Amino acid sequence: MGSLANCRRRSQATTERVKVDLNADVGESFGVYHAGDDDHLLASITSASVACGLHAGDPSTMRRTVRKAAHAGVAVGAHPGFPDLVGFGRRELAATPQEVFDFVLYQIGALQAIAKSEGVRLQHVKPHGALYNMSARDKAMAEAIARAVAASDDSLLLIGPPGSELLRAGEAAGLHVVAEAFADRSYESDGSLTLRKFADAVVLDPSEAAARALRIVREKKVVARDGSTVDVNVETICVHGDTPGAAAIAAAVRAKLEDAGVTVRALR
Amino acid sequence: MGSLANCRRRSQATTERVKVDLNADVGESFGVYHAGDDDHLLASITSASVACGLHAGDPSTMRRTVRKAAHAGVAVGAHPGFPDLVGFGRRELAATPQEVFDFVLYQIGALQAIAKSEGVRLQHVKPHGALYNMSARDKAMAEAIARAVAASDDSLLLIGPPGSELLRAGEAAGLHVVAEAFADRSYESDGSLTLRKFADAVVLDPSEAAARALRIVREKKVVARDGSTVDVNVETICVHGDTPGAAAIAAAVRAKLEDAGVTVRALR
Amino acid sequence: MGSLANCRRRSQATTERVKVDLNADVGESFGVYHAGDDDHLLASITSASVACGLHAGDPSTMRRTVRKAAHAGVAVGAHPGFPDLVGFGRRELAATPQEVFDFVLYQIGALQAIAKSEGVRLQHVKPHGALYNMSARDKAMAEAIARAVAASDDSLLLIGPPGSELLRAGEAAGLHVVAEAFADRSYESDGSLTLRKFADAVVLDPSEAAARALRIVREKKVVARDGSTVDVNVETICVHGDTPGAAAIAAAVRAKLEDAGVTVRALR
Amino acid sequence: MGSLANCRRRSQATTERVKVDLNADVGESFGVYHAGDDDHLLASITSASVACGLHAGDPSTMRRTVRKAAHAGVAVGAHPGFPDLVGFGRRELAATPQEVFDFVLYQIGALQAIAKSEGVRLQHVKPHGALYNMSARDKAMAEAIARAVAASDDSLLLIGPPGSELLRAGEAAGLHVVAEAFADRSYESDGSLTLRKFADAVVLDPSEAAARALRIVREKKVVARDGSTVDVNVETICVHGDTPGAAAIAAAVRAKLEDAGVTVRALR
Repeated sequence: MGSLANCRRRSQATTERVKVDLNADVGESFGVYHAGDDDHLLASITSASVACGLHAGDPSTMRRTVRKAAHAGVAVGAHPGFPDLVGFGRRELAATPQEVFDFVLYQIGALQAIAKSEGVRLQHVKPHGALYNMSARDKAMAEAIARAVAASDDSLLLIGPPGSELLRAGEAAGLHVVAEAFADRSYESDGSLTLRKFADAVVLDPSEAAARALRIVREKKVVARDGSTVDVNVETICVHGDTPGAAAIAAAVRAKLEDAGVTVRALR
Repeated sequence: MGSLANCRRRSQATTERVKVDLNADVGESFGVYHAGDDDHLLASITSASVACGLHAGDPSTMRRTVRKAAHAGVAVGAHPGFPDLVGFGRRELAATPQEVFDFVLYQIGALQAIAKSEGVRLQHVKPHGALYNMSARDKAMAEAIARAVAASDDSLLLIGPPGSELLRAGEAAGLHVVAEAFADRSYESDGSLTLRKFADAVVLDPSEAAARALRIVREKKVVARDGSTVDVNVETICVHGDTPGAAAIAAAVRAKLEDAGVTVRALR
Repeated sequence: MGSLANCRRRSQATTERVKVDLNADVGESFGVYHAGDDDHLLASITSASVACGLHAGDPSTMRRTVRKAAHAGVAVGAHPGFPDLVGFGRRELAATPQEVFDFVLYQIGALQAIAKSEGVRLQHVKPHGALYNMSARDKAMAEAIARAVAASDDSLLLIGPPGSELLRAGEAAGLHVVAEAFADRSYESDGSLTLRKFADAVVLDPSEAAARALRIVREKKVVARDGSTVDVNVETICVHGDTPGAAAIAAAVRAKLEDAGVTVRALR
Repeated sequence: MGSLANCRRRSQATTERVKVDLNADVGESFGVYHAGDDDHLLASITSASVACGLHAGDPSTMRRTVRKAAHAGVAVGAHPGFPDLVGFGRRELAATPQEVFDFVLYQIGALQAIAKSEGVRLQHVKPHGALYNMSARDKAMAEAIARAVAASDDSLLLIGPPGSELLRAGEAAGLHVVAEAFADRSYESDGSLTLRKFADAVVLDPSEAAARALRIVREKKVVARDGSTVDVNVETICVHGDTPGAAAIAAAVRAKLEDAGVTVRALR
């Protein structure tokens, strides 16, 4: 009896541990330009990071995206980026920390108001593209982002790479931070993502991405490009919205996780 | 005794009536570009309408402007405009009501977050330039703006011209609306502003602007270009931030009003 | 003998008459955003109007597009539009004629330099979207465009709707003007295009578009929405690059015309 | 006798050597935003570098600036920059060489057409801000710029810092290159400019700037911040258009040079 209770507790504890959020970037269309397969992605993910108009997205796209996410029961977050529309926020820009603070706050606020008008409260913030990459290693930029998130709503979760300056800055700013791994990106043995210039940087095969996701959740590990094993301890798994076949990858990841008994649900 | 009480009531009523807000557009700089004499304007006005990045302003300018306004004890509002930076939001654009709703909401939200980070809550919204002029007469555009204001924060005041579609739409949306007159603009006999193409459209003489402001407050009247008298019943008087000598005009208006016993204070 | 010569002359004249240019808008991608099926369109058309960065297109897209067009043996022209990226240049903007002159000249020049670097000389200019529609009826705007074209290179052809202010202004400016008809748009009995808000404004069926094109070339007529017949005398036929299935329509139009013995070739 | 001939030759050589161009950035206004004192600057300089719309300037400002320069007898060149309006092109951006080639070509072409419409042929190209600084040391970026200049018009002069990758790339591309020094900037002992973060980076005193300019022209030397002497061999001297009091500095430099018998004239 005692052992059964123990077993139950253990099982429950295990069950509690085996849950994960599945996030993707959405709302990256602009004006007449269509980007990403949001409708299908939203059927599989649990958290959506919405572009805020400076690197992608526009006010009308933002509203439509929030509405769709809410309709699909997907949590919504802000996905602020560099003010570089033609470069899609992927080019490093020597912005000052103060400028970063200001334009991140601006983007979060714009989405907050649009979300509010759709009856949605933002769950998280995740920087986009070069801003994500730079703030992972640049302390001053990381702090600027963390302060902007805290200033807009200190209950917002801050998503970033595990062990990054961004998450350290988020914690220092009193935010709840959330580490993420990528189901559709290859890793190096030091835990960094394989640079996109390498052919195998992106995992395009849905079943491979799904297998990687499951291993990340269950074993907290990924196999790096060189065959070594890297520890990853994360609460959310990202599928890039702009990877070709993103919706199919997200669907495969979700199915694989749920088939394995993992609870896939939003962060909050 | 009864007559004394009556007198007191009347006097009190009079006192209550003789107060007004003095507003100006500020924060219209962009990047390295400096526009307007905000520092001096803020010393005289009681409400500041801050550009939100689509026709003027940028996130860093917005933050600095809100901070300065707060420091000067001036109430802050949003001044959304058309997405037309090179045209400063002064050119009519055939945007749909839905687009207007979306980009007005976007701009208000962006400023709300920045204001919150400075410990400031927005007092009002006032459309800028061509958006102001078009929404004064275009019901669908007016409704789009009013809905956007209500969706972002239904306690926000909506400022517009007296008798305009904008104020009607604001009321219909359940907003408190505030009619404004211009101390530094000439009027036509039908109550409309003299078009800027006429030489005497703008009142540049501080003492004349001050005299007009006092008459608007005390007598609720302005003398039109043709000499006729027009009724104006407003709660706020605008001095354009970009009129040459705007700060001197605002200072003269404020001094004249206060010398005459008018209470100049923010709307809320 | 004389009659044989006459016959030959007549036949030759007939042959000379039955030729037409087939044009489409291309290069409307922007940054990471892909628009239009340029690769397939370029296989069927003979003149390409390239977006110049203010309503669509960017410097890199422009270069790639010119290169592709040159490779496909397609003549290249400039497709300047309003500075309204989020609105794709489709929204009317109250720009002054001087502003229009300046930004049209700017866009043509930018494309001229890029074309020159690819060994291509521009053949024509055709305004885009709202600029096309407004300049068809607004004389001052039409003159501004015509003057900008003439100022950049007075050998450039100016394409516009038959009977428009644009073509009149072009002729007055000493330009060779080219009237165009649309294979994929429905007409009203007055010769104007059916507004896009009507369901049947766009002809999506390739064989119907092809039949219309042939009738335009052979009979110089289109059947309007109300069944009446409208005269059209044009030298070029447009297939919109952003109509769904544009490439299939262009291919069908070209095949139909060539099968009927029409020579499809660029304007110059 | 021989000594007299030698003396004459030397004198002649000296006379030939003692001439210089005086350049400044102009046309940096944007829309309603006014920047720089172009009218006064143009009275003193001999070459004007005109902003081309991506970091500053707009089509209408470009036309007005070219017209003013032509009226003042000042040679005109293109001043292309990064596509970063809010950052005024001063922030480093990780653009690829191909992107740089494309947007530099775009900007030169736009100005060429506008200049042509004013009867002006461009004399030179000089990159702006971060593009200038990066291309001074980044070979790939320098080559991209040089190729873009050569592609647009291989008779255009390319202005850059002496000994820079930019000038090397220009020479390799077959361009005539022109080294420049700054009258209003402080130098380090290695010949680089003192970073703007130092208080004495900018020389604001007109007479000091003038003295530096004369020494640069006559002795081909500047005194660095640490008192050491640096060799500079240049054909043009720059006065920044956005230095406070730029017009007064330019006037003082020109007067000093001409009083000393130096011929101040455009490069071509």
